[in-house]
Amino acid sequence: MKTQVAIVGAGPSGLLLGQLLAKSGIANIVIEQRSGDYVLGRIRAGVLEQTTVDLLREAGVASRMDAEGLPHDGVELCFGGQRHRIDLHGLTGKQVMVYGQTEVTRDLMAARTAAGLPTVYEADEVAVHGFDSAHPSVTYLKDGVRHEVQADFIAGCDGFHGVCRASVPAGAITQHEKVYPFGWLGVLADVPPVSDELIYVHHDRGFALCSQRSKVRSRYYVQCSLDDKVEHWSDDAFWNELRARLPADTAANLVTGPSIEKSIAPLRSFVAEPLRFGRLMLVGDAGHIVPPTGAKGLNLAASDVGYLWQALQGFYAGRAGEIDHYSQRALARIWKAERFSWWMTSLMHRFPENGTFGHKMQIAEMEYLFSSRAAMTALAENYVGLPLVST
Amino acid sequence: MKTQVAIVGAGPSGLLLGQLLAKSGIANIVIEQRSGDYVLGRIRAGVLEQTTVDLLREAGVASRMDAEGLPHDGVELCFGGQRHRIDLHGLTGKQVMVYGQTEVTRDLMAARTAAGLPTVYEADEVAVHGFDSAHPSVTYLKDGVRHEVQADFIAGCDGFHGVCRASVPAGAITQHEKVYPFGWLGVLADVPPVSDELIYVHHDRGFALCSQRSKVRSRYYVQCSLDDKVEHWSDDAFWNELRARLPADTAANLVTGPSIEKSIAPLRSFVAEPLRFGRLMLVGDAGHIVPPTGAKGLNLAASDVGYLWQALQGFYAGRAGEIDHYSQRALARIWKAERFSWWMTSLMHRFPENGTFGHKMQIAEMEYLFSSRAAMTALAENYVGLPLVST
Repeated sequence: MKTQVAIVGAGPSGLLLGQLLAKSGIANIVIEQRSGDYVLGRIRAGVLEQTTVDLLREAGVASRMDAEGLPHDGVELCFGGQRHRIDLHGLTGKQVMVYGQTEVTRDLMAARTAAGLPTVYEADEVAVHGFDSAHPSVTYLKDGVRHEVQADFIAGCDGFHGVCRASVPAGAITQHEKVYPFGWLGVLADVPPVSDELIYVHHDRGFALCSQRSKVRSRYYVQCSLDDKVEHWSDDAFWNELRARLPADTAANLVTGPSIEKSIAPLRSFVAEPLRFGRLMLVGDAGHIVPPTGAKGLNLAASDVGYLWQALQGFYAGRAGEIDHYSQRALARIWKAERFSWWMTSLMHRFPENGTFGHKMQIAEMEYLFSSRAAMTALAENYVGLPLVST
Repeated sequence: MKTQVAIVGAGPSGLLLGQLLAKSGIANIVIEQRSGDYVLGRIRAGVLEQTTVDLLREAGVASRMDAEGLPHDGVELCFGGQRHRIDLHGLTGKQVMVYGQTEVTRDLMAARTAAGLPTVYEADEVAVHGFDSAHPSVTYLKDGVRHEVQADFIAGCDGFHGVCRASVPAGAITQHEKVYPFGWLGVLADVPPVSDELIYVHHDRGFALCSQRSKVRSRYYVQCSLDDKVEHWSDDAFWNELRARLPADTAANLVTGPSIEKSIAPLRSFVAEPLRFGRLMLVGDAGHIVPPTGAKGLNLAASDVGYLWQALQGFYAGRAGEIDHYSQRALARIWKAERFSWWMTSLMHRFPENGTFGHKMQIAEMEYLFSSRAAMTALAENYVGLPLVST
C-alpha cells in the first residue's frame, strides 16, 4: 500500500489529523493496534479549549459537540472550605467546552467511516521504518498477514507507550520527566454534576475535582497514594471521601450513584525533544504527557495536530521547509502548557514532603490569586488555552 | 524608667516605629545590644516599595531619600542570554526607590537624635518580661548597671536572632521555614552600576544580580554554594564569575573596582505565627525572613511598622481592639510577600536537584511571563509592593 501520511494510532489526535489531512486532499491511512471499541473505552479528559473546538469544526466533526457540548464561562477553585470563581469569559473573552474525549473520538471515527478513509484496527506488531530517508514505511500484521504501508511521512499518534517514540535512536532524543508522588482515583457516574462548572479543591485530605461530561454524567476525582488499589475503594468509600473534601453545602448537593468506571491514574509530566526525526513526527501523548490538572492533554494533542496539519499542507504546496518548524512551534506551546499543568498540580495537591512552609505557599498563592485581577487573568488565559502561533 | 512602648532593636524597623510613634505623641525608648556604628555597618537591601517610601515621608525622614534616591520605573530579567524588561510603572502606575538600607538607618538615627528621643546602644543582657500581663518590661545592663524599662507594650524589632521571639514560650508559636541549598556572594563597590535598572540573571552557572545603591555605588551578587567561603573569592574572581553570567554586551559595560564589602549570605524563608503574644509584638526580621530575591525584607519590616503604628495609635485613642488585629493584618501581607520571594527565588536560581524538567519549567515560566501582559502585571504588582490593607 502507498499513501502520503501513515498515521500510527487511532486516538483523537490520529483521527483528527487524518480528517484534516483528508480535507486538504492529503491521502492518509490510520493504523491502530487495538480495536475501535478499546480506543473508545479509554476514559480521559473532557474540557476542550477554543483552539481544539476550532480544529474540530474545521475538520467537520463538530455538529454533535456544538449541539451537546456545554460551554463553560468559568471554573472554581476551592480552598479553606470556600469556593472562589475564576471568570474565564470575563477575564479572557473565551470559554471552554465540556465534551468528553470519548465523544470526540466517536465523532471522529464516524466521520472517518462516512468519508471512507482507510483505517486498520487490531494491527499487530506495528513497526516504523526508514524515517531517516525520504521513503519511510509502517509494517504490521493483520490476521497473520504482513502488510507494508509506504508513505511520505509517519505521524506518531500512538501515545506514551507507543512504538513511534520507542523507535527513535536514543541519541537523537532528550526526555524530560517529573513523576508526582500521588495518583488520581476517578469515578464516572450517570448522575448530574454537583455544580454547573468544574470545582478544583485544595483540602488537607488531598486534592479533589468535580468534573463532568454532560448534564447527566459526572466525573469526580480524589488524590490518592500511588500504592492505592482501585479494589480498595467501594463506591460508598469514594463518595464519602469526596464529600469530606468538599465544603459542607457543596457536599450536601452531591448526587451519587453507581460508578460506571473507576480507575487510578498516576500523574506525570513528560516531554520528548525534538518531536520530528526526519520523516517521523510525534504528536500528542507520543511526545509529551501532562498531569490532568487543568485538562491540557487532549488540547495539546489537538494543537500538535494543528501545527502538523499546517506543516504538511505547506510541504505538499511546495513549501518543504514548513516541516522543519513543526517541532519548535509545537514545543513552544507544549512547554507553556506543561508549566501551567505542573503549576496547577503543585498548587492544588497535598505534598506533605514540602512541609508546613510548602503548604503555606499554596494558601498564600491562592489568597493572592483571588486578590489580583492580573493573577486571575494569567490563570484564565492558560486555562482557556494560549493562542496557536501562526506561520 | 517608664515609657509607653519599649522598642527592642535599633535597626530600621525599630527606629522607624519610634519615629512614627513619637509623631503620634506616643513615648518610646529604643534599646539596642550593639553600637550605632555596628548597626550601620550591616549591608542590606536597597530597593524601597512605595509603601515604605510613604512611611518614611510620614515619619519625616525622607528629605535625603527624596533628594538622592533613584526612582526606578522598571526591572530586568535576563535568561538565555537575553535581557527582558518589566515596565513596573507602565503596568502598575508605581515605581520603586533605590536607596540603601544603610542610608535609611542613618537618616532615622539622625532624626531620632535631633528629636532627642531616648535610645540605649550597647545594652547587654537585654531581656523581656511580663508580656502576658498588662505591665511588661525590658531589662538590660549598661556599663555594668541593671536597668528596667516599664512599658505598656514591647515591640520586638531585634531581628531573626533577637531575644524577643526567643522569649516566647515554644507552645505559643508556630514556625515555618525553608532553607535554600545555596547562598549569595555579594560585593559592594564604588563603581557606577552596569545598567540604570536592576538586572536579575538566570544562568546555567547560577543566578546573578546587578543591583545598586546610587549612581556611583553598585551591589552585585552571584549564587554560590553554601559551603563556599568569602576568602576563596578574590575581587578578580568575583568579577570574572559575574561577567560569565551576564550577556556579552552587558559584561562589556561592567565597571569593576575594589570591593568595599564582600560577604556570603544564606537564603531562608521563615515565618513565625502569630506575631503578637499579649503585650509583645514581633516586627520585621524578628518574625519573618525572606530570601533577598525581590528585595522584600526591609519593605515587609516597614509594613509591619505601619500596621503596628496604626494599632498602637488605635489603642491610645481608646480603640483597644486594634492591637488584636496586628498579627493577622501583618501576616496576610507577609505571606504574600513570602510567596513572591520564594517564587522569584525558585524561578531565577539554579536547582540541579530539580533535574532537567525543573530547569525547563523555569525557562517556560520566563517565556510565558514575557508573552503575557497579565503575568508581567502580576510580577510587577508584587515587585512594587502589594497595598497595605487599611483598618
